[in-house]
Amino acid sequence: MAQKDSLSEFLATAVDAAKKAGAIIREGFYQTKHVEHKGSVDLVTETDKACEDVIFNHLKQHYPTHEFIGEETTAANGTSVLTDDPTWIVDPLDGTTNFVHGFPFVCVSIGLTIEKVPTVGVVYNPIIDELFTGILGQGAFLNGKPIKTSTQTELVNSLLATEAGTKRDKSTVDVTTNRINSLLFKVRSLRMSGSCALNLCGIACGRLDLFYETGYGGPWDVAGGAVIVNEAGGLVYDPSGKNFDITSQRVAASNLFLKDAFVEALQESE
Amino acid sequence: MAQKDSLSEFLATAVDAAKKAGAIIREGFYQTKHVEHKGSVDLVTETDKACEDVIFNHLKQHYPTHEFIGEETTAANGTSVLTDDPTWIVDPLDGTTNFVHGFPFVCVSIGLTIEKVPTVGVVYNPIIDELFTGILGQGAFLNGKPIKTSTQTELVNSLLATEAGTKRDKSTVDVTTNRINSLLFKVRSLRMSGSCALNLCGIACGRLDLFYETGYGGPWDVAGGAVIVNEAGGLVYDPSGKNFDITSQRVAASNLFLKDAFVEALQESE
Repeated sequence: MAQKDSLSEFLATAVDAAKKAGAIIREGFYQTKHVEHKGSVDLVTETDKACEDVIFNHLKQHYPTHEFIGEETTAANGTSVLTDDPTWIVDPLDGTTNFVHGFPFVCVSIGLTIEKVPTVGVVYNPIIDELFTGILGQGAFLNGKPIKTSTQTELVNSLLATEAGTKRDKSTVDVTTNRINSLLFKVRSLRMSGSCALNLCGIACGRLDLFYETGYGGPWDVAGGAVIVNEAGGLVYDPSGKNFDITSQRVAASNLFLKDAFVEALQESE
Repeated sequence: MAQKDSLSEFLATAVDAAKKAGAIIREGFYQTKHVEHKGSVDLVTETDKACEDVIFNHLKQHYPTHEFIGEETTAANGTSVLTDDPTWIVDPLDGTTNFVHGFPFVCVSIGLTIEKVPTVGVVYNPIIDELFTGILGQGAFLNGKPIKTSTQTELVNSLLATEAGTKRDKSTVDVTTNRINSLLFKVRSLRMSGSCALNLCGIACGRLDLFYETGYGGPWDVAGGAVIVNEAGGLVYDPSGKNFDITSQRVAASNLFLKDAFVEALQESE
């Protein structure tokens, strides 16, 4: 019970941190259209840094002995090697391209691993005010209401999400579009929204049935969302079907029913 | 001035109709997760029909002499041949796949053509409560605030939107993914959100820089959004660069600066 209480406290602290960062993101989001393009790139960098500072300061104040891994300042703030210690893994602004363009799929992602297991997750989209939360063994929630993955059992009726990524060498782009080509014959349709963490939350609340992405930034993109998917009754796994490795930059997610067929379809798309 | 007044009145009537339909969509949207899959397909059909009835009844009450073109009941309610008469072109529920899955990009689209010219446009997303409006010569608005297209001048910094469509024959899918492959080398990133009307509004408010789609359902997908893009300072055109034909099921849109480069990129992607 002490354990359960402390996890709830970790979540509450993480939600506070996410809301603080969300306020900064919201302010910047509505400014990007009023600055020159170069200015908007500076704005994303400033916002990203300001959000990470706010989140890390808030968390460190409460948990000075915990470890911290962040996209922006991993080197300055802590280690990027995941240990068994309680470790906060933070993406202060997921969906930076969306942020620059004013496309409303941006979020703060905060995950806590304990003994390397994703244990607490918060993903907050401050633009459409959606707060996804999850605690290991205690369920997943959207704005306080319980969420569940979809009940879809057929690939052909499934909504798939993936991303085009940021690499533009011929080999990567060809792999990306060949895979999409192969999968389009098997699923209902395809969405690309530009945020890995929000795609995971889309699986968790059943808006999306299937998601995969390879080559994303790092564990900060998935640490928060992974808990939320698991607690919503879904599965997070390697696109090969093997166990999910949070440090591998390879992720797939779905409900229980679709995993085997999805893994097979992903293998056939290689 | 009489003309200007009557266009404002047309818009106000269309907004009322869109809000009525939006309430129906919102109600159904949050039910889809609680019905069996077959039930959710029935729900989309029922919602679509109920929304079209509400919109057409509202508009016909105010404008009994106008013409009406709708996705669902074109045959029952009127002609699908566009004449010079004032003609309301309505998609009661754009983004039906999103509706079924609970993905929050769904909208009502209402456009009025006069002498075949898109003159009044309303696109309303009732889930995230975004109301896009435009009147020929009087600007475009999001929730009452003026909107403008992006100021982006370079393809390489542009955010592109398109859709995977609904056809799954090999030829169509290959054309779709080959085109995406070619364009990914030239733009910053790609979004697929599942609503043609909302993609046009994304161009209008500068969230998106480039949009094209071929093979969409019909003029109801574009009639509302076309006015909004034009009035936000953007351009709607055929992907070949030729004039936009509202009946052709081919559309591209961008700001003024990007059109030539985008058309060239689209041609090279064929």
